[in-house]
Amino acid sequence: MFDFQYYTPTKVVFGKNTESRVAELIKEFGGTKVLIHYGGGSVVRSGLLQRVTDCLDAAGISFVTLGGAVPNPHLGLVYEGIELCKKEGVDFLLGVGGGSAIDSAKAIGYGVANEGDVWDFYDYKRKATGCLPLGVILTIAATGSEMSDSSVITKEEGLVKRGYSSDYCRPKFAIMNPELTMTLPDYQTACGCTDIMMHTMERYFTNGGNMDITDALAEGLLRTVKDNALILCKDPKNYEARAEVMWAGSLAHNGLTGCGNDGGDWMTHKLEHELGGLYDVAHGAGLAAIWGSWARYVYKDCLPRFKKFAINVMGVEDKGTDEEIALRGIEAMEDFYRSINMPTNLRELGIEATDEDLVLMAKKCAIGVGGEMGSAKVLNEEAMLAIYRASM
Amino acid sequence: MFDFQYYTPTKVVFGKNTESRVAELIKEFGGTKVLIHYGGGSVVRSGLLQRVTDCLDAAGISFVTLGGAVPNPHLGLVYEGIELCKKEGVDFLLGVGGGSAIDSAKAIGYGVANEGDVWDFYDYKRKATGCLPLGVILTIAATGSEMSDSSVITKEEGLVKRGYSSDYCRPKFAIMNPELTMTLPDYQTACGCTDIMMHTMERYFTNGGNMDITDALAEGLLRTVKDNALILCKDPKNYEARAEVMWAGSLAHNGLTGCGNDGGDWMTHKLEHELGGLYDVAHGAGLAAIWGSWARYVYKDCLPRFKKFAINVMGVEDKGTDEEIALRGIEAMEDFYRSINMPTNLRELGIEATDEDLVLMAKKCAIGVGGEMGSAKVLNEEAMLAIYRASM
Repeated sequence: MFDFQYYTPTKVVFGKNTESRVAELIKEFGGTKVLIHYGGGSVVRSGLLQRVTDCLDAAGISFVTLGGAVPNPHLGLVYEGIELCKKEGVDFLLGVGGGSAIDSAKAIGYGVANEGDVWDFYDYKRKATGCLPLGVILTIAATGSEMSDSSVITKEEGLVKRGYSSDYCRPKFAIMNPELTMTLPDYQTACGCTDIMMHTMERYFTNGGNMDITDALAEGLLRTVKDNALILCKDPKNYEARAEVMWAGSLAHNGLTGCGNDGGDWMTHKLEHELGGLYDVAHGAGLAAIWGSWARYVYKDCLPRFKKFAINVMGVEDKGTDEEIALRGIEAMEDFYRSINMPTNLRELGIEATDEDLVLMAKKCAIGVGGEMGSAKVLNEEAMLAIYRASM
Repeated sequence: MFDFQYYTPTKVVFGKNTESRVAELIKEFGGTKVLIHYGGGSVVRSGLLQRVTDCLDAAGISFVTLGGAVPNPHLGLVYEGIELCKKEGVDFLLGVGGGSAIDSAKAIGYGVANEGDVWDFYDYKRKATGCLPLGVILTIAATGSEMSDSSVITKEEGLVKRGYSSDYCRPKFAIMNPELTMTLPDYQTACGCTDIMMHTMERYFTNGGNMDITDALAEGLLRTVKDNALILCKDPKNYEARAEVMWAGSLAHNGLTGCGNDGGDWMTHKLEHELGGLYDVAHGAGLAAIWGSWARYVYKDCLPRFKKFAINVMGVEDKGTDEEIALRGIEAMEDFYRSINMPTNLRELGIEATDEDLVLMAKKCAIGVGGEMGSAKVLNEEAMLAIYRASM
């Protein structure tokens, strides 16, 4: 068991029609001039943006808006947001949407609160010393960015995708109304469920320190998302299932499911980041496409955890050798992915990569992690390439 | 499923020797003049108080100290602390100890930040509008006060014990070093485990709205505390088990295990509060002594939850009628109490109450809850008396 710090200051306001409380919450956290940052047109088409601006108007809170955050949000828009905030004297950010809008808002917040180029933080050149306060209205359950300390931004030049984490960017409040996620296409819902489970699985498959209670919480969360993802495949408008998944998304990535361990493995995420950078795939689907190949490559080096996962999460019977049980757990997970229409390899993801592409991705991935990384098993560039090849 | 708010802003710093970070954390949260509030002599004898004051001295943070917080902390000492803070210009409180010192510090914080008599809040006469910022160094895993919004104070006149809850009093930081709990007598350790489990069980046994994920987290937490309480009975110095219990104590009462339900039942706590007020018993032992009688009185009105508890927490086989399974779960819980040397009735707790005493307690309890209360089953004064009588 490792020492740990746990810090989740975000005030979560969860339930139907909670977006109507947005002005009250902005005031509670001291916002007087707001940048509303959102993604594509769905926030506009659904009428959510109008409801939010009406609410701010009624409360006398002045605001500007900036749309256009895309999946794998771009640095260019972040720069644009920073300029807009400085010009307009914005003192509070409101991200409306999924992880893209929230991550983009976090980067804008760093850029406003710190001198110099905001990309420096994502490029590991220096550390932020603050972030403009931020609230969110979540419309997609997936990245957990609504409570997390992390954000991921893509630099268009060279399609470099990098994450930066600090407590400064944890949102002050998160408004979560499961009804807002109901218009999401089924594929995106399944991608979200995959991402949520993966945030906890990355923390679960480690060789460095574990706590019984963290494992128990992680396993309970994973079973819950698995069960409710299957419900949503058949009944996408099921409010209760939407709520289970939405709340799980926050808990999966706010730090709770990693307390006491070494911080997790995270190589599936790193391998997927290169996919996301090159092919602009949906993050969750990319994770599903990689995970099985990663798991088969590393499980022997992390056997007790893979066995425990198989039994406690996937419901595999405790019979046979540890390796057999672990492998049945991996197969069961891949069966689950298929049952929610997620890919289990790159071809199913729609990527026809040449071996040259795979070599390039492995090279970029290795550079991105500083040579080698992993807890279930430490992976170098050669290992990364082997996993990419196995995932074709 | 109910709408909910979840707000746990406390920065948890967990692990060995973490108390050495106290000055840094006080500065991070803006403290310049500190009242260190603690309980009995153990904080002095163990050298912890000296280490804390050395740390503050080295950092140039000025402080005053106030000891003497007792279990079921007294209003008189709270008044004394308020006066001291005002006189000395204290702007930050540091509670060092268990729930008594922390609850007492919270009450002092209310008293400094609000005009008028602080007892008004505990007497439900008005609401606080703030609280002096507070940090804690936890030495007893039990009440969860280190992350919770609640505090319980006893007014000496008439031995009236009342709780008051608001987000204002949630600690800014909580330093948790499991090693600090190792000097605790075994009986107090068992009392703590009982209290921790009960905080989650109070939230679990409801008839109002539940979430799968909340249930899964609650059940995982309860199993973890149960297993590790048994380990600590045989091996009180086991660091890992101490850590599991300590972290569970915070999660059991910070709101996590109640998300989406009606707030919980809480009648075992209310019934115990009257015991604590009259007899000054250890809170955890009082809860254990009452719970079985409460459970047998109410389980038929909350059968699905008692059945689920029996199977998922106590490991009862899913065989027989729901009532049989529920009753076997209650019996298993009482067996567990016995195995960690907790009482399962008032006599085992050492209370030789007359029927007149029980009538008086039921009367006071009913007044305290405003007539009737409960979610598993709504209890009036007559029901409370029946449970007290059954617990003799």
